[in-house]
Amino acid sequence: MQKLKHVEEQRGVGRAQILEAIRKAGNIARIDIAKETRVSPATVTAITSELMETGLIEEIVPDEPRQKAKRGRPRVALKIRGDAFPVAGVKVARETLSTMIVDFAGKELANHEYTLTNPSMTPEELAEEILRALLMTSQKAGMELSDISAIGVGLAGLIDAPRSFVHWSPSLDRRNVDIGETFEKVFHCPVLVENDANLVAKAEQLFGHGRNLSNFIVITIEHGVGMGIVIDDKIYRGTRGTGAEFGHAKVQFEGALCQCGQRGCLEAYVGDYALLREANAVIAGEPLTDLTTLWKMAQSGNPLANAVFERAGKMFAMGLANVVNIFDPELIILAGGRAAFDHLDLKEVKREMRAHMIAIDVEPTEVIAHQWGDEMWAKGAAAYALDGVAASKIRELAKNAS
Amino acid sequence: MQKLKHVEEQRGVGRAQILEAIRKAGNIARIDIAKETRVSPATVTAITSELMETGLIEEIVPDEPRQKAKRGRPRVALKIRGDAFPVAGVKVARETLSTMIVDFAGKELANHEYTLTNPSMTPEELAEEILRALLMTSQKAGMELSDISAIGVGLAGLIDAPRSFVHWSPSLDRRNVDIGETFEKVFHCPVLVENDANLVAKAEQLFGHGRNLSNFIVITIEHGVGMGIVIDDKIYRGTRGTGAEFGHAKVQFEGALCQCGQRGCLEAYVGDYALLREANAVIAGEPLTDLTTLWKMAQSGNPLANAVFERAGKMFAMGLANVVNIFDPELIILAGGRAAFDHLDLKEVKREMRAHMIAIDVEPTEVIAHQWGDEMWAKGAAAYALDGVAASKIRELAKNAS
Repeated sequence: MQKLKHVEEQRGVGRAQILEAIRKAGNIARIDIAKETRVSPATVTAITSELMETGLIEEIVPDEPRQKAKRGRPRVALKIRGDAFPVAGVKVARETLSTMIVDFAGKELANHEYTLTNPSMTPEELAEEILRALLMTSQKAGMELSDISAIGVGLAGLIDAPRSFVHWSPSLDRRNVDIGETFEKVFHCPVLVENDANLVAKAEQLFGHGRNLSNFIVITIEHGVGMGIVIDDKIYRGTRGTGAEFGHAKVQFEGALCQCGQRGCLEAYVGDYALLREANAVIAGEPLTDLTTLWKMAQSGNPLANAVFERAGKMFAMGLANVVNIFDPELIILAGGRAAFDHLDLKEVKREMRAHMIAIDVEPTEVIAHQWGDEMWAKGAAAYALDGVAASKIRELAKNAS
Repeated sequence: MQKLKHVEEQRGVGRAQILEAIRKAGNIARIDIAKETRVSPATVTAITSELMETGLIEEIVPDEPRQKAKRGRPRVALKIRGDAFPVAGVKVARETLSTMIVDFAGKELANHEYTLTNPSMTPEELAEEILRALLMTSQKAGMELSDISAIGVGLAGLIDAPRSFVHWSPSLDRRNVDIGETFEKVFHCPVLVENDANLVAKAEQLFGHGRNLSNFIVITIEHGVGMGIVIDDKIYRGTRGTGAEFGHAKVQFEGALCQCGQRGCLEAYVGDYALLREANAVIAGEPLTDLTTLWKMAQSGNPLANAVFERAGKMFAMGLANVVNIFDPELIILAGGRAAFDHLDLKEVKREMRAHMIAIDVEPTEVIAHQWGDEMWAKGAAAYALDGVAASKIRELAKNAS
């Protein structure tokens, strides 16, 4: 018994590793999986046949000419079974829900943009809105909502992802919400909730600039400032789900008032609302309500508008330098929809950042801007749901085996 | 051939894992190693006999009564072979070298405190000073210096540990020193160099408050401010060896001048020199040269002295809150020799820190102060050397096997 349990534990780890290796490679022969994962070839054979039975992976019949060129049995490759388990990703923003349905291989089947009437809702209202958006999306994809195996949801705020628990989110009208429970009543499949910046990091890791990196950081600027940290190929979450709160790291003692109620947060200097607040305090006329107008004023030479952006850029650069001083990552990706980084003048930000960085005679961490639409946040959410499906199928296998 | 290479790669990983499991357990039977490491029992048997031949581990004959109580063969346990490879640890401070020799099981054999005449030396001078200190220490331990298998050295500054390369250290009179090369000419064994705060983290992990934690942060205050980060049981180093530079994270835009030449670094508000600088600018009389005098003045009610410590405490609290906001660790350990944290009034610092932390309805990260002497830094350095010996012996085994 003891020994069997031990073998089963090893196998549980092996299943996840092997599925990951197949996903990463696209298609891969069993012997190469063994090399890649350091799992013994016999175990690889046993596990891959389990995964095939569950429908997670399938064999690819090798091309005829390649097969002839080799002696012995043809090397059959394995790949993720695309049409196995379609999943949905949802990014909740202030004014929209961006949704995407992908197949189990990550191929996009449909996406949709749904307009929200209210930026801050009850948990039940949010669930209803997501339901409506997903009904439209699944229709576009030519499937029933019940065909969806799992849903990934990205929310701004302080999310304890392993528990699908929201400490606080601007999208909800209350704190401490067991959002997983609410969603389970509405959707008849697992719903995985994660901080939205972590999902951008996930998307960068799977489809973007983080593909070949083990350690990188994604910073997002929208209404607020978010951060996703990848260390050793994994999203770093901290112990209570409140890690990576770059936007609320203090850059000034007793500084500007932040929407979180504290003072001196980076967000209180570089978030949309912070810039508008400063501008409206000094620029005469109708109060400005969007950054685009302020940006146009700066472009046409308004010194007050320029001064607002200038300070924001300097504060942001100092914040970035702190990230480099503390994490020393391989790459920092400034990711965002809209032209979020235009007004911060990336070249100037990088120059300023270097002035605040620990000086050594080695090239500093690279900083790149990656502009992409909200649908990519949704794709990150879908990728997170894929992980969830894989994990739950693997748990089922383990349960049946023990 | 391909298959053999694959088996050997697996085994390389297994050796380090198994040695680590034995070190962690104290003593442990082969079957429990297999369970712990998820390496197959057959491989555990093969690897442990290799490790025994190399002299890294040994068998413990089980007690007679326990043996009788069980049926079948007695369960022989394995342990680290203490007298296998003694190693030395060295902590380089401004005025002293603290050294320690431990056996391969981590048991202290001797320690020594050596006075430095010059805080900033050439690389060759530093090597000579370490040599003298270690000669005295090995004499105390009743052994020759040539009996030492490896030396771990902790330096303040920006150290690229995997390369034993010093970008900058206050103990050296120049930048960009390949200190590994210098040390190799003087010592006839591997010398591993690491940032001193990382070594305190190592010591906390092995012997202190980090023993049962996977994610914690150590902060040191001496002349400067250091940080060691443990994530998933490993010291986090960043990609260029300049990570965890908490002391030079900026807490004020264009703030106080730091010894690094930049402005607004935390160290420029809480380091020894920063407090003395502020005090001497406003307190009449002979310039103060040590914190103890200033601390006594504050204790006896001098309002200027009190104001200096008060701001330092507030700035330090804000810096700590940033660490929590970004890492959300299980525990923060404020570690230091001398009564480094007395003057920062830990209770007040914790209260202030909470005011700057992201507010959620979950208990905040625990912060504890752990006061220990310089010999514990040396013990961390020795622990680092132990890892080095283990790694090099395992590399030798891998080389002989392939």
